[in-house]
Amino acid sequence: MQHDINSTTIQAQEVMDRAQQAFLSFRHASGRKRAELLEKIADGLEAERSALVRTAQEESHLPDTRLNGELSRTIGQLKLFANLVREGSWVQASIDPALPDRKPLPRTDIRKMLRPKGPVVVFGASNFPFAFSTLGGDTASALAAGCTVVIKAHPAHPATSKAAFRTACKAIQDLGFPADILQHVDQPDIRTGIELVKAKATAAVGFTGSFQAGYALMQAAAERAVPIEVYAEMSSTNPVVILPELLNSAAEATAKKLAASISLGVGQFCTNPGLIFITKNPQLETFLKVLKSAMETTAAAPMLHEGVLAGYHNNLQVVLSQAGVDTLVEGKHVDGTIAVTPSLATVTADSFLHNSSLKTEVFGPFSLVIIAENQAELLAALQSIDGQLTASIFGTQQDLANKTIVTPILDSLTAIAGRIIFNEVPTGVEVCHAMVHGGPFPSTSNGSYTSVGSSAILRWARPVCYQNFPDSLLPEELQNANPLGIWRQIDGDWSKNQR
Amino acid sequence: MQHDINSTTIQAQEVMDRAQQAFLSFRHASGRKRAELLEKIADGLEAERSALVRTAQEESHLPDTRLNGELSRTIGQLKLFANLVREGSWVQASIDPALPDRKPLPRTDIRKMLRPKGPVVVFGASNFPFAFSTLGGDTASALAAGCTVVIKAHPAHPATSKAAFRTACKAIQDLGFPADILQHVDQPDIRTGIELVKAKATAAVGFTGSFQAGYALMQAAAERAVPIEVYAEMSSTNPVVILPELLNSAAEATAKKLAASISLGVGQFCTNPGLIFITKNPQLETFLKVLKSAMETTAAAPMLHEGVLAGYHNNLQVVLSQAGVDTLVEGKHVDGTIAVTPSLATVTADSFLHNSSLKTEVFGPFSLVIIAENQAELLAALQSIDGQLTASIFGTQQDLANKTIVTPILDSLTAIAGRIIFNEVPTGVEVCHAMVHGGPFPSTSNGSYTSVGSSAILRWARPVCYQNFPDSLLPEELQNANPLGIWRQIDGDWSKNQR
Repeated sequence: MQHDINSTTIQAQEVMDRAQQAFLSFRHASGRKRAELLEKIADGLEAERSALVRTAQEESHLPDTRLNGELSRTIGQLKLFANLVREGSWVQASIDPALPDRKPLPRTDIRKMLRPKGPVVVFGASNFPFAFSTLGGDTASALAAGCTVVIKAHPAHPATSKAAFRTACKAIQDLGFPADILQHVDQPDIRTGIELVKAKATAAVGFTGSFQAGYALMQAAAERAVPIEVYAEMSSTNPVVILPELLNSAAEATAKKLAASISLGVGQFCTNPGLIFITKNPQLETFLKVLKSAMETTAAAPMLHEGVLAGYHNNLQVVLSQAGVDTLVEGKHVDGTIAVTPSLATVTADSFLHNSSLKTEVFGPFSLVIIAENQAELLAALQSIDGQLTASIFGTQQDLANKTIVTPILDSLTAIAGRIIFNEVPTGVEVCHAMVHGGPFPSTSNGSYTSVGSSAILRWARPVCYQNFPDSLLPEELQNANPLGIWRQIDGDWSKNQR
Repeated sequence: MQHDINSTTIQAQEVMDRAQQAFLSFRHASGRKRAELLEKIADGLEAERSALVRTAQEESHLPDTRLNGELSRTIGQLKLFANLVREGSWVQASIDPALPDRKPLPRTDIRKMLRPKGPVVVFGASNFPFAFSTLGGDTASALAAGCTVVIKAHPAHPATSKAAFRTACKAIQDLGFPADILQHVDQPDIRTGIELVKAKATAAVGFTGSFQAGYALMQAAAERAVPIEVYAEMSSTNPVVILPELLNSAAEATAKKLAASISLGVGQFCTNPGLIFITKNPQLETFLKVLKSAMETTAAAPMLHEGVLAGYHNNLQVVLSQAGVDTLVEGKHVDGTIAVTPSLATVTADSFLHNSSLKTEVFGPFSLVIIAENQAELLAALQSIDGQLTASIFGTQQDLANKTIVTPILDSLTAIAGRIIFNEVPTGVEVCHAMVHGGPFPSTSNGSYTSVGSSAILRWARPVCYQNFPDSLLPEELQNANPLGIWRQIDGDWSKNQR
């Protein structure tokens, strides 16, 4: 029996209680079994590729190539987590063997590993109908960890969400897992989302979307009788710093790279470079001219939906109407459509410094260039912004040699960002082990975690310690013989050894 | 200049701003330098041992041997974290090298490691004037991570706290660190604590104490413009489950072990076994008789201070006055002192199940034995309790062979506890790599972390990712040559290799 909940009388409590019931058995499924499930879901998505892409295209207005690429990424993520949990070392097993002869007191045997938290709620994101939605990274990593999942479908692509969900249901059924390890709720209102977060059985929440919605979920979670973690990826302006020497050698190339990044996906990426910090320089005019020209010649493209378009218009107007802001490129809105062309503006670092309206995310194809008189002013402007998913530095070897300039900039970016990028644009997030797609508030609710890459699984597990346990009663990951052959820390050193 | 803040006009904002200023340089101190600092502080404590113990004895009423042991543990913790950060692998370095030939797109070089969060506030605990106070595990692990620390002294031992702080100041001065890497605030009121949590520069908070105080700090942190993590260790009843066969072979020995654990430190440990679950059995009377006798013959000993005594009395009376509770041992309060003898009571599992007043922590030398008619009733009672630091199981080989009894109990304990213990008492927390002294709410604010053992350092750091960075600009931990010789994950596999 599938649970695809779409009646208007949805009872969040019941949905989460079913997820909890399913968790009671799913938590015992081995990493190998969970890997099989993820791979079968991936295969199902591949088999349904053309229908899924067609449905998503109708709902999201994203182009065919982008959606095919995103679906491939989604399939890749499912396979990454399958490999991760089949291999098994992700549980961070740690063994401190007994020291019966230690003085003054003997040490008992202590072991620990990560165990799944319980049922989690995953909110789909509008800008990634596949990769950050129904069967995206949050769901893949949570199932991989051994959690059961309730998906709150994003109202902008309900049919895509349901189609993806049905694919997963087939895999779940074929492998004989309880149906309720994955449930789908497609009530469009935020109230339903809040109720799911507040339901007693909910152990954690994954979210990608707006600051307003993410913050509402954080508050709901904090007000629970038992507070839980909401892992919300919310908003980021992704500062880019252009070092002084770069403009002399690469003004044109850098401007073109940035223009392409700002316009990519009609600017609807959480890593869109929204703020560009630069000091006055003879080549600044060239840089701005090329940036302006590249953005002016970018073709109009549709945004995701009317709501995103309206939000973009409003937020853009707020920025463009601030004192000291010069509009370099005034984007156009193609009448009768939801298509736009990119916008670009400049402002002095001095005006930027004290105006918080210039520091909030404008979700769409827009960037603000902040022009500083000197490095001190640039640094002050940079230090006035909030937590970020990414921060980028463009510079030459000569720039890097100038430590008095580079070190304070790098320190400032380290303090505010989850990922610091050298001479590359922030869009395009690699799905790998070392990725951090997370950062200090308000870019996310909790900068200690990532929502992309294999470490995303850590959000759904917590350490459990076993003291003086008989070997037979321990999880396989902690047994002396290391039957799974995983990496473990024994007395603090990593190995695949037996104990 | 030392900053020992005790004027009544303390400005939390200024204190934390100074901590932030000191962080700007301290974050660049190498692991080796931080290790030197921790060791010098440890040496200072050893040099001042007799004076420190004398002061603590006057303020805490704890016996000399206990305080000497606790000070040794505190010194040991400082050295553990010194070793941890000198060795350096704690930063969880991860390197995914570039794959320039990957199709359809090349992969760029991505690396990550943990970096310190910033200035943190540490609240001293009344029940551990050394090990969980001024220079205890929270301060040691935060300094080890590279964070600066503001200590909020516990009002029950202000002179002990100040003496320990002055010892650390000397080490800081001798090694030439900025004075403000460690500050000491001894305002006794909770309002000052809240202000420190709310100050803009505060990046995280460590706390050990009551649920009420810890929860107030959690709420203050959630209400900040930029919410932060409070790592609060708050309350736990530490359930103990006695399996059926054990009573036949070890009723007496187990009862004696438990009685000693309940009375240890006059019951003033967060791991005190407050709930004992047992099924009816012919040997039950023997078990209760021995437990009763051992507790009746325990000598009176002073509690920490009047406040703890008053809280203990109140909470104990609430429990003893509940319907169905039989008092087996009525503890005595020695007139004109703050000394008490232990108390013991029993209740049926059926009465326990629906009465939340029986499930809250009674901080002191008391335990409640919950007697079930059968295993199903025991399991239901067990599943009705909240998150716990520890849960213990006492059983024989024969008990373990009975999977229908053991598996559901183990599953239930895994769901609620941070540490599960077999045939040992929960008091006595080993300081090692695999320790988890943490657990689901309300035992702590965040069950994903531990406040004891080397992993306690993880509370004070967050991952930062470096993309396409020139080797020379990377932190040493991530450089190709692995100059620090640390364990790193390269493409997911652990080694000390160069890249």
